[in-house]
Amino acid sequence: MKHYTSIHDIDNIKAWVEDAKALKQDPLKHIELGKNKTIGLLFFNSSLRTRLSTQKAALNLGMNPIVMNVSGDAWGIEFGDGTVMNGNTAEHIKEASAVVSQYCDIIAVRAFPTLTDKVKDESEHVMNSFKKYASVPIVSMESATGHPLQGLTDAITIAEHTKVTKPKVVLSWAPHIKALPHAVANSFVQAMQKMDVEFVIANPEGYNLSPEITGDTPIIHNQEEAFANADFVYTKNWSSYNDYGKVLNTDSSWTITKDKLGEAKFMHCLPVRRNVVVEDAVLDSDSSLVIEQANNRTFAAQLVLKKILENNK
Amino acid sequence: MKHYTSIHDIDNIKAWVEDAKALKQDPLKHIELGKNKTIGLLFFNSSLRTRLSTQKAALNLGMNPIVMNVSGDAWGIEFGDGTVMNGNTAEHIKEASAVVSQYCDIIAVRAFPTLTDKVKDESEHVMNSFKKYASVPIVSMESATGHPLQGLTDAITIAEHTKVTKPKVVLSWAPHIKALPHAVANSFVQAMQKMDVEFVIANPEGYNLSPEITGDTPIIHNQEEAFANADFVYTKNWSSYNDYGKVLNTDSSWTITKDKLGEAKFMHCLPVRRNVVVEDAVLDSDSSLVIEQANNRTFAAQLVLKKILENNK
Amino acid sequence: MKHYTSIHDIDNIKAWVEDAKALKQDPLKHIELGKNKTIGLLFFNSSLRTRLSTQKAALNLGMNPIVMNVSGDAWGIEFGDGTVMNGNTAEHIKEASAVVSQYCDIIAVRAFPTLTDKVKDESEHVMNSFKKYASVPIVSMESATGHPLQGLTDAITIAEHTKVTKPKVVLSWAPHIKALPHAVANSFVQAMQKMDVEFVIANPEGYNLSPEITGDTPIIHNQEEAFANADFVYTKNWSSYNDYGKVLNTDSSWTITKDKLGEAKFMHCLPVRRNVVVEDAVLDSDSSLVIEQANNRTFAAQLVLKKILENNK
Repeated sequence: MKHYTSIHDIDNIKAWVEDAKALKQDPLKHIELGKNKTIGLLFFNSSLRTRLSTQKAALNLGMNPIVMNVSGDAWGIEFGDGTVMNGNTAEHIKEASAVVSQYCDIIAVRAFPTLTDKVKDESEHVMNSFKKYASVPIVSMESATGHPLQGLTDAITIAEHTKVTKPKVVLSWAPHIKALPHAVANSFVQAMQKMDVEFVIANPEGYNLSPEITGDTPIIHNQEEAFANADFVYTKNWSSYNDYGKVLNTDSSWTITKDKLGEAKFMHCLPVRRNVVVEDAVLDSDSSLVIEQANNRTFAAQLVLKKILENNK
Repeated sequence: MKHYTSIHDIDNIKAWVEDAKALKQDPLKHIELGKNKTIGLLFFNSSLRTRLSTQKAALNLGMNPIVMNVSGDAWGIEFGDGTVMNGNTAEHIKEASAVVSQYCDIIAVRAFPTLTDKVKDESEHVMNSFKKYASVPIVSMESATGHPLQGLTDAITIAEHTKVTKPKVVLSWAPHIKALPHAVANSFVQAMQKMDVEFVIANPEGYNLSPEITGDTPIIHNQEEAFANADFVYTKNWSSYNDYGKVLNTDSSWTITKDKLGEAKFMHCLPVRRNVVVEDAVLDSDSSLVIEQANNRTFAAQLVLKKILENNK
Repeated sequence: MKHYTSIHDIDNIKAWVEDAKALKQDPLKHIELGKNKTIGLLFFNSSLRTRLSTQKAALNLGMNPIVMNVSGDAWGIEFGDGTVMNGNTAEHIKEASAVVSQYCDIIAVRAFPTLTDKVKDESEHVMNSFKKYASVPIVSMESATGHPLQGLTDAITIAEHTKVTKPKVVLSWAPHIKALPHAVANSFVQAMQKMDVEFVIANPEGYNLSPEITGDTPIIHNQEEAFANADFVYTKNWSSYNDYGKVLNTDSSWTITKDKLGEAKFMHCLPVRRNVVVEDAVLDSDSSLVIEQANNRTFAAQLVLKKILENNK
């Protein structure tokens, strides 16, 4: 593995989950591995968990994190090929990635989708441009179509909390007032498809994720039916994929309630809008794993950075 | 002491002042204490001294500081209980504090008051929410009603510079064009009330601080009378407390001049508007202790962090 | 050397170039030199290379970098002498520099020119105020009239890549849609004037740099004539100096093309607007040294910091 920008960069998710659990037991064990190495964290978008946990992961490996808000701190970046740059962008990604590669041993990038241009978003032009023009490994801290550090985190959390050999996991859409990306949902689907779980997706009609992603995974439009006997309910809003980037409804009948949840554990990547996506009674109960998930972000990131550092020794 | 969010968290201010003076003599003595520990500095508002001195204090203890501008870097935070979050806030303080607690061994927070809602400000809803929902110690880097790192700093500075056993200290209001918080003044009052000093407050009518804070401390509306025989004149603007958050006057007769100051030392927490709050002749003279105060910010913060780290070993 | 704010602070550019090349061979050799020392990087303006390479340079010397966007993170700074500060600025540079000096062993500052007030810009009021009021060394990360870390970088890069004893170096103006500072061009001119090179400047009429800077250096208004037999073509846009800060033309006949360049190496400080300043065919060819230049920013900064640390031991 050179880069980590997709769940498909995980060769063996079960082994990775075990490795991450071991790191969590002894986070400072490899503090010499990243000594005098620098990781650049480049944010095109807001972040709390990713921003802090990736820094923490790097520090646990002895690395020096350098954080930059690309838009606010630096220059507008141009991604087009052959563009005459007489507009708002002042620096081309070709130069930006090559240059940053010389100051950082690893570059981590967060770049959300437009949600208006499906072709552009699916081309992953930001992340792929970094991979193309940088000379060092690239880690996705969420791109247009995936959030693989979150997906790995979620696999770890499910492995830690399952009480059965093959748990039933449901990914459920929930309402939200804004148009949100598909990235977290996509990476969760891809992670679950690699795990030894019974996995179904629950979403209203019109909200099916990309069929390229969902593949053979059952999609159920009846939330109650999907939730039957669930061990884990992973909740996330996303905007429509077919009617790309649109909010088709904010149907509060899809809000997650304690009643619907039953004995299942509740998961969400955060941030979560309380009483819109999920009611307080769920988040404030022992059924919620959201804080534990956030904690595992550190160890997912640390495992990825550790593997990259080891590959490049 | 678990948290440090008020001058009242200081059990023995004289002992703390001596401890801080000792740290100042040998700032790197405890560089192993915070090794591999992380402090998160969360800013809801602007900062120069606090931002830099708290990082410096953490570095002197071997800690890794992680700095975040909450509003710009992360998500709008919701503090209301039971809110249906379908507005501008994307993350609830319950999740935010619990999550950050997992990446940081100490969380330091700056959150200014609204100055429009006295009840909300006096409830210290931001700082208290962090204390309630975080699982690690919270340090105030200035909250709605107090700036206890500044208050401790000021106690240290007065102790260093006094030439008499029981100096006379005056806290004087001075004019300013904007509505400013009461936090610095409040913490200074509370610190002086614990010190062995003769302490009076000078402010125009309508500018009395909260009587809960000032208690028995004499309040004098005649600046000249208050300044008589003063050893230290601590100057600060604040907006009206009674007519909450209002600028009632910008009376330049309250500006601090060299004439008024006499033999007293001048103190101010900075930033200070020259020739509005105080004339150049004071700031540019040997009577001014403002730079020395700013220097002591490092050692006040370092003492607080040291005590917290020692309590949590 | 106490401060580094001008190419004229270099006593012997050939020796410095050799020192920087040695650092580049063994960047971590002096990692103990800056141990427990702090450098404050204060940005009044955007930055990518400078922001990252100066941090990297500091880390290579074992220093702790503290980065601050002055405008966004802290307070509006007043530079005027005797100002009644009842406007938008909240803190005077006198206090700001003295205060930051107490938290940082070196202060690095980026502050661009107004490009509307030539007298103010040429007075270098920001950089000179820091030098005047700070008690620690000041490093320019680009000021109103110079970018000496870039100039040193460029000298290193030319020394590394020249194949002849005395190469011909051309500084060529190129078009741009926005009014840009003269700083990079000025420092490049000053650096070349100290190097053993044949040096000419090519720019359209109306675009001569300050005669104080250019001195005896030939200025040629015919780009083709200037480029004849060039070994290095250093390209940069700048706004008019005579008609101060104005964009007199955006004449694309001055755009650098592969044709014009011939056998010469292409240099630019970046960021560069592709197909406005220079065509893709140049940047994407082996003739371009721009990425290597950016790499050398680390070693130029590291040399400057090393010299300052050694002077202050």
